[in-house]
Amino acid sequence: MNPVLDAIYSRRSVRDFMNRPVEREKILEVIRAGTWAPSGLNNQPWRFAIVTDPGLKGRFEGLTHYGNVISSARVLIPVFLDKRAMYNIVKDHQAVGACIQNMLLAAHAMGLGAVWLGEILRSAEDVRDLLGLSSDFELMAVVAMGYPEHKDRTSTRNSVKEVIIFDK
Amino acid sequence: MNPVLDAIYSRRSVRDFMNRPVEREKILEVIRAGTWAPSGLNNQPWRFAIVTDPGLKGRFEGLTHYGNVISSARVLIPVFLDKRAMYNIVKDHQAVGACIQNMLLAAHAMGLGAVWLGEILRSAEDVRDLLGLSSDFELMAVVAMGYPEHKDRTSTRNSVKEVIIFDK
Repeated sequence: MNPVLDAIYSRRSVRDFMNRPVEREKILEVIRAGTWAPSGLNNQPWRFAIVTDPGLKGRFEGLTHYGNVISSARVLIPVFLDKRAMYNIVKDHQAVGACIQNMLLAAHAMGLGAVWLGEILRSAEDVRDLLGLSSDFELMAVVAMGYPEHKDRTSTRNSVKEVIIFDK
Repeated sequence: MNPVLDAIYSRRSVRDFMNRPVEREKILEVIRAGTWAPSGLNNQPWRFAIVTDPGLKGRFEGLTHYGNVISSARVLIPVFLDKRAMYNIVKDHQAVGACIQNMLLAAHAMGLGAVWLGEILRSAEDVRDLLGLSSDFELMAVVAMGYPEHKDRTSTRNSVKEVIIFDK
């Protein structure tokens, strides 16, 4: 099978991680993959934080309903929108989504597991404060990452037929 | 090199296409790849139109500054958000961005070229009218696709160092 299609179809949200650190080069490669997403006018509005320090990471646990995922993950990559780089709110949010998808696929392709945490957006200001960032940066998601515990992970999608609303 | 990373880094926006039709199975595979993006609560808010009819496709040309791209492309896939499936506007726009990135990567992996057209959003209502769709569907982008004309396509990105705003 085509390895890119295979990655797209076999990627799953991973929420249980091994007690094994993630190599620095792999963390940077995941971010690099994110930056190669397309963006309107190539404005590249995304910015990234890297959190591996256990004490700091622990302070994220209380900011989301999914503290157990944070606890298990070895790396957090909070993804931000730089408001100074924005040009269109819809397109910038889409671009960040494309960026995060690249990150998830890159992690999966390197044998890592990752999950896109969105619920933590309710604590966006706390995350920003924790990292000492200015209000120029708006939290878009946190990617939690590590080497996956081996287990079956299934998911489902609507069929292609169900999502095609016009065809001519 | 890792084929997934290679696809992420070698994909380019393609705006010049061969006069060669795109196989139906490949069009459906691109859409299927889109549907395997993650979305908040797995709400899968994306919907797709397929436009290959030359007469109908021609009517898109006047709706964007990039009519020449529409003219050259063999397939248009207008991507919509189904408002009835939405749960959070930011996360839904991000999910659609992730979906479109999957589509672009899948097209590239199958030897196709594609470009994410966003400027056409200024004609979102005209596109909806052209396809006879209800106002439940909000245009998010048009993916224009075909077999790429062979030419060098370069692009640039900020370095990883420039986009990391916190590291501990």
